[in-house]
Amino acid sequence: MSAVSGEFDFIAGLRALATNPAARGLNDDVAALEIGGETLVLTQDTLVDGVHVLDGSDPTDIAWKLVAANLSDLAAKGAQPIGMLLSHAMGFDDARFLSGLKEAIEAFGAPLLGGDTVAMPEGSARSWTLTAIGRATHLPVPGRDGASAGDGIYITGQLGAALIGFEALRDGSDEDSTAYRRPQPRLAEGQALAPLVSAMMDISDGLLLDAWRMGSASGVTMAIDSNSIPIAIPEARRDEALRWGDDYELLFTAPDGTSFPCKVHRIGTVERGAHALALDGEAVHSPDGLGYQH
Amino acid sequence: MSAVSGEFDFIAGLRALATNPAARGLNDDVAALEIGGETLVLTQDTLVDGVHVLDGSDPTDIAWKLVAANLSDLAAKGAQPIGMLLSHAMGFDDARFLSGLKEAIEAFGAPLLGGDTVAMPEGSARSWTLTAIGRATHLPVPGRDGASAGDGIYITGQLGAALIGFEALRDGSDEDSTAYRRPQPRLAEGQALAPLVSAMMDISDGLLLDAWRMGSASGVTMAIDSNSIPIAIPEARRDEALRWGDDYELLFTAPDGTSFPCKVHRIGTVERGAHALALDGEAVHSPDGLGYQH
Repeated sequence: MSAVSGEFDFIAGLRALATNPAARGLNDDVAALEIGGETLVLTQDTLVDGVHVLDGSDPTDIAWKLVAANLSDLAAKGAQPIGMLLSHAMGFDDARFLSGLKEAIEAFGAPLLGGDTVAMPEGSARSWTLTAIGRATHLPVPGRDGASAGDGIYITGQLGAALIGFEALRDGSDEDSTAYRRPQPRLAEGQALAPLVSAMMDISDGLLLDAWRMGSASGVTMAIDSNSIPIAIPEARRDEALRWGDDYELLFTAPDGTSFPCKVHRIGTVERGAHALALDGEAVHSPDGLGYQH
Repeated sequence: MSAVSGEFDFIAGLRALATNPAARGLNDDVAALEIGGETLVLTQDTLVDGVHVLDGSDPTDIAWKLVAANLSDLAAKGAQPIGMLLSHAMGFDDARFLSGLKEAIEAFGAPLLGGDTVAMPEGSARSWTLTAIGRATHLPVPGRDGASAGDGIYITGQLGAALIGFEALRDGSDEDSTAYRRPQPRLAEGQALAPLVSAMMDISDGLLLDAWRMGSASGVTMAIDSNSIPIAIPEARRDEALRWGDDYELLFTAPDGTSFPCKVHRIGTVERGAHALALDGEAVHSPDGLGYQH
């Protein structure tokens, strides 16, 4: 095998190994595995201290976010959480981590089933890995690749609250940091929407980047009207809010005229086209700078 | 919540959260989750560079061992692997890691379904987490806690080969290091034995420590005759082989007189008693020094 020059090549190498249909080509944040008469939805995310977690974060918030980020991927597939496995790197304040974990388990009804604990060598950054296991409530499990020309494009909530929260925490200001520290996976919305959508994913990496990915996977243009997007941040920072991640809302497409069982906001229309994304009528030629790539 | 003084307290805290029966009280290396008429067997292990992995290890061997260690836990429950999720910390030689992963996937028929890749900060030790998902082939899924007075105690293979291999690798000697670098999870044996055993687990942390854990979980004395244990190491080092880990054999108990469909070695008898382990007729009073505690 030739040398792997970076994460992009490594993931391409993983894709070549992940030939089982349940892996969905590693293109969908989750695996969808049929067993018995059910379909499991599986996801695994790792947080690294100082990379995905702001230095000095309260361990209760780290634990919460680890759980919420994984459950958000289940939410985007309409899955009901049935279990979690945690790999925890021991640290100085593990009682607070446990406390946040308990809060999240109770808030989301996702039972802790197992995992591992390890000690990192002195001076190493800690990391935490969580695997979330869900049960699909609707088949087929919504993918990124089903958006179809003529569909409406929707999100479940407003953007920018997490960015405000992040800055409040970073700067120690009086602004409310809750939206950044304690994201709420849209589990109820995801289950209610799954039977109605043509494609669905969360926007944890930023709306525009994730919309680009959905358009790319679906072979369509996601034509988004930036002014139609509800924001929780001053108007002058609208563009930032569309590119910043950590708002754990759902992005989905559905046939024009669909009625929805929960509050959603229409932000554009799926079009035929060679570009995965168009913003206010301008084709976007590359995902660079659209969001948080990791 | 009071301060957590170490890993022991942290795990006690996790146990208090893991109240779902599928978690098996976090006492059994795996979770066993019923869904769709099947029982899933779930396990998750993390390897840390420089802690669980010898410095300078070939990444092909790290990938193999990560897979094998997890599948060994499935083997001990008679489960058939149906999927794996990998969280990978990027490093300098990821092409070789992919190559070892490919070998292991092909050798064990365990499909890669998803996961995550992360970059660690400069200077941090890397870690790798794998979740293995299996389908139980026999119910009930064997636990650690079913050993019963009068049962025979058995292992599936000989001990000490991994220790020899470790020393060869560490010292750069001509001895064969394969047993340490490329452990073989006993998947076929585990599935064949599951209907016959009263308790089963792997001995990756060392035979004596794991036997102590089985005796403790079962409320019996595991009375082991050290000279009956087959070893792949000079006789003078027999005691070391019983305490060293990384021989991924299975330890199990079964009613006296059971016939087995694969080669096994009887190493003792389960007895009534207050001590979890007795070695050559001497009660062992503490697990300290029996094996690799992590």
